[in-house]
Amino acid sequence: MTVKQPDQIEAWKAAELIARRELKAQDLLQACLDKINERESDVQAFAHLDVDGARARARALDNSPVSGLLHGLPLGVKDLFDTADMPSTYGSSIYAGHRPAADAGTVAMCRAAGAVILGKTVSTEFAYFSPGPTRNPHTRGDQPAHTPGGSSSGSAAAVAAGMVPLALGTQTAGSIIRPAAYCGIVGYKPSLGHVTLAGIKLLSRTLDVAGGFGRCVRDAALLGAVLTGDHDLRQLDQRSTPRIGLFRSPSWPQADTDTQAAWEQAQAVLTQQAACRDVSDPAGFGDLVALQKEVMAFEMAQALSHERLVHWSGLSHQIQQLFEIGVAVTGAQHAANLALVRHWRMRAEALFEGLDVLLTPSTTGEAPAGLSATGDPLFCRSWTLLGLPAVHLPFAKGRHGLPVGLQLIGRHGSDHQLLAIADWVHQRLKV
Amino acid sequence: MTVKQPDQIEAWKAAELIARRELKAQDLLQACLDKINERESDVQAFAHLDVDGARARARALDNSPVSGLLHGLPLGVKDLFDTADMPSTYGSSIYAGHRPAADAGTVAMCRAAGAVILGKTVSTEFAYFSPGPTRNPHTRGDQPAHTPGGSSSGSAAAVAAGMVPLALGTQTAGSIIRPAAYCGIVGYKPSLGHVTLAGIKLLSRTLDVAGGFGRCVRDAALLGAVLTGDHDLRQLDQRSTPRIGLFRSPSWPQADTDTQAAWEQAQAVLTQQAACRDVSDPAGFGDLVALQKEVMAFEMAQALSHERLVHWSGLSHQIQQLFEIGVAVTGAQHAANLALVRHWRMRAEALFEGLDVLLTPSTTGEAPAGLSATGDPLFCRSWTLLGLPAVHLPFAKGRHGLPVGLQLIGRHGSDHQLLAIADWVHQRLKV
Repeated sequence: MTVKQPDQIEAWKAAELIARRELKAQDLLQACLDKINERESDVQAFAHLDVDGARARARALDNSPVSGLLHGLPLGVKDLFDTADMPSTYGSSIYAGHRPAADAGTVAMCRAAGAVILGKTVSTEFAYFSPGPTRNPHTRGDQPAHTPGGSSSGSAAAVAAGMVPLALGTQTAGSIIRPAAYCGIVGYKPSLGHVTLAGIKLLSRTLDVAGGFGRCVRDAALLGAVLTGDHDLRQLDQRSTPRIGLFRSPSWPQADTDTQAAWEQAQAVLTQQAACRDVSDPAGFGDLVALQKEVMAFEMAQALSHERLVHWSGLSHQIQQLFEIGVAVTGAQHAANLALVRHWRMRAEALFEGLDVLLTPSTTGEAPAGLSATGDPLFCRSWTLLGLPAVHLPFAKGRHGLPVGLQLIGRHGSDHQLLAIADWVHQRLKV
Repeated sequence: MTVKQPDQIEAWKAAELIARRELKAQDLLQACLDKINERESDVQAFAHLDVDGARARARALDNSPVSGLLHGLPLGVKDLFDTADMPSTYGSSIYAGHRPAADAGTVAMCRAAGAVILGKTVSTEFAYFSPGPTRNPHTRGDQPAHTPGGSSSGSAAAVAAGMVPLALGTQTAGSIIRPAAYCGIVGYKPSLGHVTLAGIKLLSRTLDVAGGFGRCVRDAALLGAVLTGDHDLRQLDQRSTPRIGLFRSPSWPQADTDTQAAWEQAQAVLTQQAACRDVSDPAGFGDLVALQKEVMAFEMAQALSHERLVHWSGLSHQIQQLFEIGVAVTGAQHAANLALVRHWRMRAEALFEGLDVLLTPSTTGEAPAGLSATGDPLFCRSWTLLGLPAVHLPFAKGRHGLPVGLQLIGRHGSDHQLLAIADWVHQRLKV
């Protein structure tokens, strides 16, 4: 079997075909490489490509028994993850050519599951706001460029462009959900603490989460099963009627007409088919955005102390500004902030009373024009702060024909249920 | 001023003298180097010493304005922390000669505060049970050797032997409190999430905490102020009568006569001077030890996937066994374990009802004889799992003349109060 349209084949399907020896890992890889040849000069999703290594690996996998869940699936790895056989720059010129001694735990787990790591995908500088060269693959090179979102810019663009079926990302503010939304793919941010961060450049102890991208919920769940080690995540049989809370959030006034239209569309479908009710903002919920910003600034300034103190001139103006904000927060204020985070994480349970999941915007609208910024993580910050699992579902188009969608949020630790409902909802919204 | 007894000078006092230019950083360093010359061949606390670098640094600090809290203080850094200018082996031969690209965030913060990093201290292999060569400094080379405890073996031994006034450590089971107890110094494990782990070899997302060692509570608080960024931690004025819960814990039957004697001694003093009451075990509390073990095994097997999958033959039998236990835990079981951890972290509040802190054993007794094991973290596992801050207080001797003490535990985030009470209690127990 040859793969004509690698941008349409789903990872779980490809894995089944490879497992039955009806598809060769080498042919799937070749289809991805063809797509890269076609689009990469324009999209620039990769910071580093290892074509020879990937070919050798695919050949070896075609000659090996199938054991892992990702056997033969090409994978893009955000350049915030350490890789022992490829450079790892964390999106910063300070680390140009840097070669870590070991793979990140998650990277080693994906390899052990049979993934073919095709390369490192572009991250913004230390996963903050200073963008790499990646452009949104939904506009062609002769059209005005739009951002793919950030910070997992390259991973989202590579999956959306059909260069890889799966890719790894991380989220500290909105770095999985936002690029998934702008690029029109599924993004999955697991519950805080459910995926090892070993060998990932750490930014914020309170916020960092590793997750990934696929073209459908089933693909994101497949990747999530490997990252968490919980293979049950792949079982997406939602049998009961989902109970969905419609949570516009205090940031709703910032949602533009494209996001509002997607909201109306989803609401029309889901109020018919699911058990929906509106959820109003708990008092003080709107303050979580500012709290997330302050916690992130303080913790990034600490985590990146070496870079801040030794390599200041090698940093972008954006991250210099973040560090200036971070070091101005006192340690006592940060301790008080962490107590507030703890308090809100307990209170968050109440949002879900009588509900399975919440539906809420992912972004203010379509991917903004230009490549000098990666858009606003506004609608993600509070959920990241609460540590709750999130899945972005793409299903609509905005006024420029770019993707728009919404995210579903689950209780902490309810990833299995969240993914099952996300799949259920996505089936109904995509049509 | 020359320093005759560097094993007795306290860090906070030395910092004051240096700030007043009554003591030179170079002289304090020389006193530490003299002590190293005298004892290191026997104690073997250091995996790497950078004498020239430390001398140059002390000289530079003597010629610079005093700004940071640790100006001129020699510091030992556990070899689990990355250092850009020294090898970082994580206690494993796999990483022999490994030289990271950057300092750990905490190391950079200590440098910025003026610390003189004298070297890397011995860690057990990946901070688990396979010991390095370090021996407990409380026995001389012609006497039978006792373990210094682990995994922060070298840091605790170096402080206890007077080689450095302060040292960094980490705790995933009992790796700060246990070696502090066996070596007879103060160990401080901050609240989970209050110290950045960037650039520390990660083992367990749920458990890892960085902290440190000093010879008195004030020194541990000084180091804690730098590690957390919360300078208020140094203010140790406990004005009200502390309310102390006496919590023998479900592991009490494993406390030997030395720990029991220390307990009786502390109880006699504190029931006189503080507001004490017995706290009984909540139902199920005893199960936390097994829960901690299972969470640690699963998460270490994931975090160290690269080492487990690529370097199996370079691992000790102990850690191979741990990984075998870890990979046998299913992801679904781990998710259930994490839910239980969350539940218990909320329930832990109730232990402190009407109390400020809990007093509880640190270890089963004195440092065991021999260097083939590092003792049992039994009395620490539950507190690490709960993420609560802990301070070990040395104040007694066991039947072999080795140190014995107890630990105080605070509510999550109550580090300031815990340290103040620890200082108050320590003053009263030391006499």
